[in-house]
Amino acid sequence: MIIVMKPESSLKEKEEVINKIKELGYRPHVIHGTTRDVIGAVGDERGKFVLQSLEYMSGVEKVVPILKPYKLASKEIKKEPTIVKIADGVSIGDKKVVVIAGPCAVESEEQIIKVALAVKAAGADILRGGAYKPRTSPYTFQGLKKEGLKLLAKARKISGLPVVTEVLNPETAELVAEYSDILQIGTRNAQNYELLKKVGQLKKPVLLKRGMSMTIQELLMSAEYILSEGNRSLILCERGIRTFETKTRNTLDLSAIPVLKEETHLPVIVDPSHATGYSKYVPAMSYAAIAAGADGIMIEVHPEPEKALSDGQQSLTPEKFSEMIQKLRAFVTAAEREK
Amino acid sequence: MIIVMKPESSLKEKEEVINKIKELGYRPHVIHGTTRDVIGAVGDERGKFVLQSLEYMSGVEKVVPILKPYKLASKEIKKEPTIVKIADGVSIGDKKVVVIAGPCAVESEEQIIKVALAVKAAGADILRGGAYKPRTSPYTFQGLKKEGLKLLAKARKISGLPVVTEVLNPETAELVAEYSDILQIGTRNAQNYELLKKVGQLKKPVLLKRGMSMTIQELLMSAEYILSEGNRSLILCERGIRTFETKTRNTLDLSAIPVLKEETHLPVIVDPSHATGYSKYVPAMSYAAIAAGADGIMIEVHPEPEKALSDGQQSLTPEKFSEMIQKLRAFVTAAEREK
Amino acid sequence: MIIVMKPESSLKEKEEVINKIKELGYRPHVIHGTTRDVIGAVGDERGKFVLQSLEYMSGVEKVVPILKPYKLASKEIKKEPTIVKIADGVSIGDKKVVVIAGPCAVESEEQIIKVALAVKAAGADILRGGAYKPRTSPYTFQGLKKEGLKLLAKARKISGLPVVTEVLNPETAELVAEYSDILQIGTRNAQNYELLKKVGQLKKPVLLKRGMSMTIQELLMSAEYILSEGNRSLILCERGIRTFETKTRNTLDLSAIPVLKEETHLPVIVDPSHATGYSKYVPAMSYAAIAAGADGIMIEVHPEPEKALSDGQQSLTPEKFSEMIQKLRAFVTAAEREK
Amino acid sequence: MIIVMKPESSLKEKEEVINKIKELGYRPHVIHGTTRDVIGAVGDERGKFVLQSLEYMSGVEKVVPILKPYKLASKEIKKEPTIVKIADGVSIGDKKVVVIAGPCAVESEEQIIKVALAVKAAGADILRGGAYKPRTSPYTFQGLKKEGLKLLAKARKISGLPVVTEVLNPETAELVAEYSDILQIGTRNAQNYELLKKVGQLKKPVLLKRGMSMTIQELLMSAEYILSEGNRSLILCERGIRTFETKTRNTLDLSAIPVLKEETHLPVIVDPSHATGYSKYVPAMSYAAIAAGADGIMIEVHPEPEKALSDGQQSLTPEKFSEMIQKLRAFVTAAEREK
Repeated sequence: MIIVMKPESSLKEKEEVINKIKELGYRPHVIHGTTRDVIGAVGDERGKFVLQSLEYMSGVEKVVPILKPYKLASKEIKKEPTIVKIADGVSIGDKKVVVIAGPCAVESEEQIIKVALAVKAAGADILRGGAYKPRTSPYTFQGLKKEGLKLLAKARKISGLPVVTEVLNPETAELVAEYSDILQIGTRNAQNYELLKKVGQLKKPVLLKRGMSMTIQELLMSAEYILSEGNRSLILCERGIRTFETKTRNTLDLSAIPVLKEETHLPVIVDPSHATGYSKYVPAMSYAAIAAGADGIMIEVHPEPEKALSDGQQSLTPEKFSEMIQKLRAFVTAAEREK
Repeated sequence: MIIVMKPESSLKEKEEVINKIKELGYRPHVIHGTTRDVIGAVGDERGKFVLQSLEYMSGVEKVVPILKPYKLASKEIKKEPTIVKIADGVSIGDKKVVVIAGPCAVESEEQIIKVALAVKAAGADILRGGAYKPRTSPYTFQGLKKEGLKLLAKARKISGLPVVTEVLNPETAELVAEYSDILQIGTRNAQNYELLKKVGQLKKPVLLKRGMSMTIQELLMSAEYILSEGNRSLILCERGIRTFETKTRNTLDLSAIPVLKEETHLPVIVDPSHATGYSKYVPAMSYAAIAAGADGIMIEVHPEPEKALSDGQQSLTPEKFSEMIQKLRAFVTAAEREK
Repeated sequence: MIIVMKPESSLKEKEEVINKIKELGYRPHVIHGTTRDVIGAVGDERGKFVLQSLEYMSGVEKVVPILKPYKLASKEIKKEPTIVKIADGVSIGDKKVVVIAGPCAVESEEQIIKVALAVKAAGADILRGGAYKPRTSPYTFQGLKKEGLKLLAKARKISGLPVVTEVLNPETAELVAEYSDILQIGTRNAQNYELLKKVGQLKKPVLLKRGMSMTIQELLMSAEYILSEGNRSLILCERGIRTFETKTRNTLDLSAIPVLKEETHLPVIVDPSHATGYSKYVPAMSYAAIAAGADGIMIEVHPEPEKALSDGQQSLTPEKFSEMIQKLRAFVTAAEREK
Repeated sequence: MIIVMKPESSLKEKEEVINKIKELGYRPHVIHGTTRDVIGAVGDERGKFVLQSLEYMSGVEKVVPILKPYKLASKEIKKEPTIVKIADGVSIGDKKVVVIAGPCAVESEEQIIKVALAVKAAGADILRGGAYKPRTSPYTFQGLKKEGLKLLAKARKISGLPVVTEVLNPETAELVAEYSDILQIGTRNAQNYELLKKVGQLKKPVLLKRGMSMTIQELLMSAEYILSEGNRSLILCERGIRTFETKTRNTLDLSAIPVLKEETHLPVIVDPSHATGYSKYVPAMSYAAIAAGADGIMIEVHPEPEKALSDGQQSLTPEKFSEMIQKLRAFVTAAEREK
């Protein structure tokens, strides 16, 4: 932590800051500058009193953090990439790029089985489908809930694809974990710390979506919540951030991929369907995600998008999905990955 | 809903859109324009199939919603302002402006009682204090939990001030409701719909903070979740939105006050402490909030901000808080309100 | 400047950074931390080689600036507030709050004179009106140009109000300066440095609007361009920043007022008309601006808003403007200012 | 244009809106809805009175535009892609992907010639280099100006690469056009309409960078300014938008590529150097840009990034640039393009 003093700060103010730093268990170190002094507070802040509040002290201009606030998610602790095993032959984070596909919501047995078989045939590795749906409006379809979980399990059995589905609250987390191979934390719950702690205690892989107004650092802090509870099978997912642009639902932040690859050992996948909000933009952004270094993509596929109970306009038909996966293979090869 | 067709769309495509509109229970209405046709779909979408997915149909350029997606939160349903009664002599939304004050977190019996008495003496109407703290880092103080709730109850008894505290998950909502006069939904849980439904079923007033990247319309949709479960004692809180500006923690969106006053009958308060992140900016923004038409303000006060276990830099001392409330009175009068 | 080294950086890398710092004329100062070293580079960067590029050096994690990049705009150089004299009896930045009012664009002699007399009667101190209009679309009204300047001068003569109008490029800056009492730099030109330098060389007061995606620090850097050319008669104007919210045209960042009052000696006014984009929200935000500490407000007034050639929906009628100024007086008094 | 009436609007208010629509030369068309009426105003708004101001009329809730506000930039006018010829064998927008490379600023003859030869050898098609530099701070290097233009011309002669450099104001536009093969409009001038008109009148290809807080629609409106002055040799450039994320300088909006490809016939290139701000993220984002469908990339290359007079931390060394171009070829092939 670097404490920057105001140019006009007095000797007494500096002494008080130095004493406070010592009192809190850090080692102070003063640099006399040309217009102002700067005091370094040496010591690891994680798990200790946070020095940010020193900004309140008289004579202090600002407090600048130096250390990253996360540990377990960081490459400083673990250099080699984390590979999360999902099922026999399906892992996320190794040389093979993973494709997750399926409808926004599980709507019926016929629908989910049809999609499962279609995406499998097209090359998908994992089936997605929402049983519990967090919808902006209380008047829209909220998911089939437990019935949806059962249908997912049936689709898994028939297709052989492992499944991922969203968990909405700590109470139902264990139930979801019984049926699903991956527990998804959605964008609206990415800072729901009670839920993060709960899935951190379970033994199932977790797919953590970036909150739509979360910085990359905050995403890593949410990851830290899960990791610090003991669950190390964690996958991060970039799914678009909120900006002023309205031609797309959100702005897909693909730069987050190389940044995360620099900062963390965790695998990173991309959801271009929710990010762009329009199926017509999904192929281009899927190719770009792989080119940027993503470990996989997550795509919405629906047999009849115009009849979908949620987010139809961002779903590909099975035919267009299949066509996209064909083209994707060239980008996978260019990225020196496999599919 | 207005469906805008592409200029080059065919007659057949138009017919298919018209048929689909009828099939879904709406009445189609075509306007032939100079460069393209536009089809109105007449009917109330709330509770019915959402037409947005028609964007997927061939020949459709875009789908523009006309109706507001919320009902119970809207002035169309209820014209007169909602007044939420908190305790004897304390309501939010009537002529009297309300002042909520207290520490970010309850830290000890001494601390919370000291603050409670100090803010009461300075003119606060309600005591705030976090027992369950949603913190970005798992390594920082997470609150005293149930012990904190008990200390709040004690502080209420001694000071006579009703209390507000945050509820973090559906499981502990009832416990919090036993101790607290108002249930606060924090910014990170503002789209945690499971939690919104739960507090919607309880009989305690709810204070809903705007999510930091939530549009005003989404805030009203989250309000709709609570209202539609039966709880009509709801207060909205503007607490800053996420922008590119870094001199303040968030950007306080005071325009949200006149917008909300135009759109909804619900009372609106402002939290300038979390919004600005620096106690030095809190007085100016408190005065501005009242001038903009807010029904109240929510202020962090801590006896020793530099020792606070969370968010010390944004807390006022009791002395500065008292001074601010003195100045605030003139703005309350200018706004033709009372304090 | 603080150079943060990577935890695994070698001794040689540190030495190279230290040598580079010396070579560039700064004094290095090493702090050995628990997990990584930090090197302070002591010396004033302004006017010298910028050390940010050291981030490129091997072993460097990041470079953190300590000094503020502006001088003349800063309170470190000039503590007392700047008062900009506009005309006899009209200054900006002293105890009296200033009201600037008029149409978005000068449309005709009748229109501008009618508005000038109306806003004067209602209490305005300065007349605004665009002669050169920067419009998003090339197909919309671009202003009366020189003819508009002459009409403004005529309106000044008849009403006695000094005038402010926008200058769009260096070529016409002198012409505008002949007719106008204040030269306005619009939001889209706030980082048009050629234009900033040009008005910095003229002898007329300048009103610099914040760019809609400019940080407060960047606004002060643009101010520095004008000040460093010799023109010290500068007024800053907050006019809304670009965010994800769509209920208002931009998001008025009123926190910028206390922040600017902390950072600079320059006067600060607020334009709620362009910020909100709707006349119905202008009164509330005008009151809030004054309560937050603004030195004045700038309001669009048009005799027939529904016929305005630009931005009609954000213009007040003279009647509503007059009513608003009446109510504003109470807030001016509450703010311990005069009107 | 769709005018949405308030639910409680009176018959008289509707009639007045209808009359106003007719008076302004449009054809009104009423749709009676279940809760409110909607009035379509049929007619092309471009070049006529803008109906947005009808929002001011009594009884009107909102006005929703239907037509796109740009014509010449749109695919409705011109379906086939625009190919901009730069020099013999160098075009932008055809099957061949273009690579523009060079230093942020021209610093010396030695530097620019060294870079020119190095990037040519590595596979660049066009040389970039700033002669006039728009810098946030007046205290940093502002470019060699005319001297820089001459050095660029020399580098062109020696390397054979056509050059692109930024034009800062209308006054020097013709001078720049004498020396440069492409006129670049930088992000801070993307809504400097006087400058857009000026380059629209010249006969040189223009490279228009997206303003950092410009929507895609506004970018197309700025393009429209240039096109409507007669210059049809226009290339658009995505270079990152301003968001809350701080790990990168801006957020590269790669979704803008498929959106622009849907909306306009103009070629689109990407500048990952300015977008990310760190050379270490440039290769990943260059690959992603090509995968997303960009017609080219623009890369900063400097022989000694740590000594660069501007933006060193985002410049690649010639070696790293060469390595990147090697890898890029596989992505170019995957995208079914050529290099």
